[in-house]
Amino acid sequence: MKKGVLLVISGPSGAGKGTICKALLKKRNDLHISVSATTRSPRAGEIDGVNYHFLTKETFEEKIKNNEFLEYAEVYGNYYGTPKTDVQKLLNNGKNVILEIDIQGALKVKENCEDGIFIFILPPSMEELKQRIINRGSETPESLMTRFKSAYKEINYISKYNYAVVNDEVDLAVEKIEAIITTEKCRVDRIKDKILDSKEGFIHEQLYD
Amino acid sequence: MKKGVLLVISGPSGAGKGTICKALLKKRNDLHISVSATTRSPRAGEIDGVNYHFLTKETFEEKIKNNEFLEYAEVYGNYYGTPKTDVQKLLNNGKNVILEIDIQGALKVKENCEDGIFIFILPPSMEELKQRIINRGSETPESLMTRFKSAYKEINYISKYNYAVVNDEVDLAVEKIEAIITTEKCRVDRIKDKILDSKEGFIHEQLYD
Repeated sequence: MKKGVLLVISGPSGAGKGTICKALLKKRNDLHISVSATTRSPRAGEIDGVNYHFLTKETFEEKIKNNEFLEYAEVYGNYYGTPKTDVQKLLNNGKNVILEIDIQGALKVKENCEDGIFIFILPPSMEELKQRIINRGSETPESLMTRFKSAYKEINYISKYNYAVVNDEVDLAVEKIEAIITTEKCRVDRIKDKILDSKEGFIHEQLYD
Repeated sequence: MKKGVLLVISGPSGAGKGTICKALLKKRNDLHISVSATTRSPRAGEIDGVNYHFLTKETFEEKIKNNEFLEYAEVYGNYYGTPKTDVQKLLNNGKNVILEIDIQGALKVKENCEDGIFIFILPPSMEELKQRIINRGSETPESLMTRFKSAYKEINYISKYNYAVVNDEVDLAVEKIEAIITTEKCRVDRIKDKILDSKEGFIHEQLYD
């Protein structure tokens, strides 16, 4: 069974990684997201195992201790994390998995998944990034500046990633990520053993029989 | 000026690299081939500087001595080679350059061009490769077996390449190579400096002004 690839879509807030992931999932049915775990309470309509795995704080911390998360973080007193087994099950079944994740999370995933594909989504410019954060409307001038400065700093982490995709137009960014998936499946590092194995098959069946 | 990428399309004879390169050049006008040099005589209709740079043996050997070829080989008493300056001029002008080349040649190019993209064209199967060599019709049974065994051995060199593309259908193989070009232009290794430089521009213009 061919193993799937893990696609980590990451970048500063305002770069548009959420929009890109939604568009990718809509366009391709070979892509899957893994369900995150959280200790926050379900909101109206949210289903356990679909929107999130809703866990108690105790269970979550137990899983942290057992190293069961690819990455996790505490946000405003609640834990959020990506369960390792879920992702691995999907990959082993040949599914390609998308993780949409902030930069700190992506760096943690990288420690556990060396052969993941790490894609950094960039805004077309820092000015455009500022505009996008402003347009969300939910920011005070102070928090806007904090977010913007943090986004600015975060761009330095790009060197930890494999690919950078500028999100000037969502469709174009999605096409680039699709090209990256196609390309990664052609990477000799990933498929060398399979090719040389099947060649071994050929020589016996076809050359010397 | 953005530098072009060097695309080395290679593989055993019968894999179909020639057909793929022709289709690529026809489809995309951002791709260019560099004109090879040779010491063989021009055939009817061949134009110096277009089909080949036609050189005397003395000139060619002088250029070998001066390390002016990315790679060269002697075939049936004639030299064939890829002039370094031609390729570099195209790349520096932002053109993407294709080299269609056998495996020995590709390995030599790799010594000179670390950041080239090395693509190995594979036949769908060794059986299909044999059929293609047979269908050329120009082979005696002995030379057929020699060519086939040599193709079989050459596949081991795949580990020196970046990508493997199976040529089952030319259109699909061409699409994969196009995806590789798109992807390589997103590779952080290639564009990191440019991104971090332009970010530096942004911080002065937009954040602190």
